[in-house]
Amino acid sequence: MPDPLFGPEIRLMLADEDTAGLRSLCEELHPATIVAALDEFTQEEIWSIITPADIRIQAAIFEYLPLPRQILMIEAARPQFGKLIGKMSHDDRVELLRRVPTKVRESLLRLVDDADRKDIATLVELQENTVGALMTTDYAWLPPGMTAVEAIDQLRQQAPDRETIYYIYVLDEAKKRAEVSLAPRRLLGVISLRDLILAPRHAVVRDLMSEEVVSLNFTDESAKAGQLLARYDFIAVPVVDEHGGMLGIVTHDDVIDILTEEATEDLQRQAGVSPIEGNYIEAPFLTVWIGRGKWLALLFIMQTLTINAMEHYQDQMATLVFLTFFIPLCNSVGGNAGSQAATLITRSLSLGQVKVSDWFHVLRREVLMGMALAVALGLFALVRTYLYSPGVPLEYVKPLAVTASLSVVCICLWGTLIGSMLPLFIKWRGGDPALMSSPFIATLSDVSGIVIFFSIAKVLFF
Amino acid sequence: MPDPLFGPEIRLMLADEDTAGLRSLCEELHPATIVAALDEFTQEEIWSIITPADIRIQAAIFEYLPLPRQILMIEAARPQFGKLIGKMSHDDRVELLRRVPTKVRESLLRLVDDADRKDIATLVELQENTVGALMTTDYAWLPPGMTAVEAIDQLRQQAPDRETIYYIYVLDEAKKRAEVSLAPRRLLGVISLRDLILAPRHAVVRDLMSEEVVSLNFTDESAKAGQLLARYDFIAVPVVDEHGGMLGIVTHDDVIDILTEEATEDLQRQAGVSPIEGNYIEAPFLTVWIGRGKWLALLFIMQTLTINAMEHYQDQMATLVFLTFFIPLCNSVGGNAGSQAATLITRSLSLGQVKVSDWFHVLRREVLMGMALAVALGLFALVRTYLYSPGVPLEYVKPLAVTASLSVVCICLWGTLIGSMLPLFIKWRGGDPALMSSPFIATLSDVSGIVIFFSIAKVLFF
Repeated sequence: MPDPLFGPEIRLMLADEDTAGLRSLCEELHPATIVAALDEFTQEEIWSIITPADIRIQAAIFEYLPLPRQILMIEAARPQFGKLIGKMSHDDRVELLRRVPTKVRESLLRLVDDADRKDIATLVELQENTVGALMTTDYAWLPPGMTAVEAIDQLRQQAPDRETIYYIYVLDEAKKRAEVSLAPRRLLGVISLRDLILAPRHAVVRDLMSEEVVSLNFTDESAKAGQLLARYDFIAVPVVDEHGGMLGIVTHDDVIDILTEEATEDLQRQAGVSPIEGNYIEAPFLTVWIGRGKWLALLFIMQTLTINAMEHYQDQMATLVFLTFFIPLCNSVGGNAGSQAATLITRSLSLGQVKVSDWFHVLRREVLMGMALAVALGLFALVRTYLYSPGVPLEYVKPLAVTASLSVVCICLWGTLIGSMLPLFIKWRGGDPALMSSPFIATLSDVSGIVIFFSIAKVLFF
Repeated sequence: MPDPLFGPEIRLMLADEDTAGLRSLCEELHPATIVAALDEFTQEEIWSIITPADIRIQAAIFEYLPLPRQILMIEAARPQFGKLIGKMSHDDRVELLRRVPTKVRESLLRLVDDADRKDIATLVELQENTVGALMTTDYAWLPPGMTAVEAIDQLRQQAPDRETIYYIYVLDEAKKRAEVSLAPRRLLGVISLRDLILAPRHAVVRDLMSEEVVSLNFTDESAKAGQLLARYDFIAVPVVDEHGGMLGIVTHDDVIDILTEEATEDLQRQAGVSPIEGNYIEAPFLTVWIGRGKWLALLFIMQTLTINAMEHYQDQMATLVFLTFFIPLCNSVGGNAGSQAATLITRSLSLGQVKVSDWFHVLRREVLMGMALAVALGLFALVRTYLYSPGVPLEYVKPLAVTASLSVVCICLWGTLIGSMLPLFIKWRGGDPALMSSPFIATLSDVSGIVIFFSIAKVLFF
């Protein structure tokens, strides 16, 4: 269980300079448990807490710290971090180096050995949000000619440095252990440790491996890694270049992080907030202000169009003021129906359940759905207005009830249509369908809602 | 790669009654790849396609079919399914049996052997959305007294039936292989296959295992499993009863499914749609209609309060009709600011980044944020109204600009406050904070927005 109760114990050990105690604590507890207890300590204290432990353990604990904390810790003790960086897992250290200022990155790179430096430099350059930037290069691999018993022996040697040894990738032997700069070895197949253990001792890897390898290209979007792991229930997926050369693996834990992060971003975008990285409550005030303010301002500007729409109908409003009572209601119907449709379609797009080419299928379904919803709400509006319309002269109640219910029907249908079609349209044009957020759809439908309402009212009243 | 291109090949084999071809296809491709190709086939055809393969493979392919398809397939050939059910993984078959009609379930249970039947009956009874209902009981385990080499031998025997053998649970030996009905054995520790392979041959499991076991209780909400795996990067987490007795494990693939499903539900709820299970575009029309319609209707009823609010100010509107031009704008500001805040807080709550006890911290931050956003929008409203107000007599422009900008400030702040505090309040009362969906917050702020606007207008104009 995550247990922040270790905090006082650690503080005590720190005060007593009990390095043996600190070491055994760091080495026995899961790094995530340690990190949960470190919240209240300063950067310098954290260095003192983890330093007594083995360098591998230090690296593991460091990896679990939140990124802003990692950066502060580097600034507190750069040389000390230099020792650590060699032992960090490749994907985590690249993620970190991507975030520190260029100057710090360069001075850190000087501290790691040559092969590592090239590896890091290559990974840091890969585009963010691609599989390449997400992958780790410390995977376990075997040549195809080994027997099962030799293979297990070989894995014993690789195990301490590898992110996972449960999937082992079989790589072309022809090319000798290549320089990082040369072309990577070709991926021939994959075998699980489970199958290797179950295999007869002298069976050859080539015969045991599965050649139907599901793989990702390093330029694929990271969301694709999530879809693939979710679909095949794998622990890891290999990443290859355009010639089938092995580059690295993406593991289940990275995918879980990606899925959580993407869900958060989708939710935020849907509410008209620019995605805020990490914990919202700890994010810098200015970042959040900009992320929220810029959308509010954009929506505000769009929404000022409703002033012009209203102004256009000012004579009708001046004559029959009760007509205006219905405007907020009509607007709300369009916005609500529209955000329902937009959210359902956007999510289905991002899960790959719906494609742009399905637009006609979606259109047909949403027209039917929009009508079925519109008729129900329209009937309700008819009855409600007919039976209870405070402040409306008796002779106007009947046409008003018809106006209200017809408007509700049209606006609900219209909201559903723009809500379902705009995300598909944006996706077709190569954009992010989540830009068609609920507030955006609501604002669009507000302007048209006013026009629809008064157009109907004009026919029935004037 | 998911490749629906196998479809024509399969259809050809089916026409030729090429059972050898079908068997080798089923056995060589990943079950998920096969399932992608099966979309266009009938239940009877699918049975013919998979039957030539080994019964374990049949079970694996069957597990990857979507649930509604599985149920149709059972109805098409119940006795044939009886053979399959014994080989399905425990969590998947429980999920399935939970969905079929009770009569079908009982007739199916008669087809499996005794121990399996008890296991299934116990699991089916566990509450949905708990860890207990998500777990599988086919985990690998060892007694603490074995040596590493004996342990690996033992795992070789367990491997074919276990969901994962990469984490092995060490259980109390004292109790002999217990009946299912008796109390489960106590969980003493955990060891990874990786550590077991790295260990000296004659080291004893007791000394190798880690005793700091992160575990779940079977009554925990399934969302907790997601949080735990995401935090510790585990492949699986053990599930125990209140006495520390081992009940099962939850694996990474289930957690990925849960995370995706929950994100979809959160998005849908946030848009005011009751969660729709599975693929929205394939969901029954009536289910979707009800899921959307009931929220639209509820929001519609709430929104009719705006009619009363407007009616209350009809004299002011009749006198100065241009005042009404600003109502849609003011309402939209409150709704947008409110849904931003509600979404950020609801998501932070569900990620465990914010707790109800943090309410004061959140309140302070959101008051500041609301003011910072409100002032920016208010200034904009002031300038815009002052410089460009079509249809407004000149002598009214100044007080109108002040009214509009003061209203925007107050309504933006108010929307931010209810958007941030209501989800915390609902959570505190034990409800689901996602009920405070964006449309709901928008509707609430609409009613109050009208009152705020006219209260300010009354002071400045009348």
